[in-house]
Amino acid sequence: MFKNILENIVSSCSGGVGAVLMGYDGIAIDQYVIDEIELDINLVAIEYSNVTKEIRKAAEVLETGPLQEVSIKTELYFVIIYALTEEYFVALTIKRDGNYGQGRYLLMRDAESLREALA
Amino acid sequence: MFKNILENIVSSCSGGVGAVLMGYDGIAIDQYVIDEIELDINLVAIEYSNVTKEIRKAAEVLETGPLQEVSIKTELYFVIIYALTEEYFVALTIKRDGNYGQGRYLLMRDAESLREALA
Repeated sequence: MFKNILENIVSSCSGGVGAVLMGYDGIAIDQYVIDEIELDINLVAIEYSNVTKEIRKAAEVLETGPLQEVSIKTELYFVIIYALTEEYFVALTIKRDGNYGQGRYLLMRDAESLREALA
Repeated sequence: MFKNILENIVSSCSGGVGAVLMGYDGIAIDQYVIDEIELDINLVAIEYSNVTKEIRKAAEVLETGPLQEVSIKTELYFVIIYALTEEYFVALTIKRDGNYGQGRYLLMRDAESLREALA
């Protein structure tokens, strides 16, 4: 059921490459990646979870309130990390010529379905 | 000269709270913070640099190309981290009811002036 939601997010997003549902402990629950991309999903999971762990720590130390969303822009991709619960988040990767705003919207739209599926 | 540019960014941004110019090594070069906010700038510097270090590492491992920009949304603030050079970045903090898009624009607009001042 997770995979259907993730696939729907990726395929509805112009330039969408893949989405991973994962825990802050670095363990991926499920993912959907388009065929043309060779992506080591376990590596992605570990790296993203390290990033989000560090950001959550910073938010705590600086007392800025809980982390809700992170957007990362690199030369080749946008990555949007969207917090779902205390333990889980979803990360969507989009090509740089894709639609970043659409990606943010789709994550917001489907966050509740993912939360329900996690419960 | 750094401070003037940072002050200009913060005061031109609706909801702007502070901006820090800093190295990935965690050492702040200069900062401007509005009076009403009590912010331990050294603490901010250390936390942001830990975050950006982790994101740069992830970008390298996942081969997504160099890091250009990071946006973090927490309950109380937006933080926009904008890469300037291999060694330095600027971080702008904006209240959640402030104008995030304006902040991104101002960083992009003044990045070249900051790079020139760093050279």
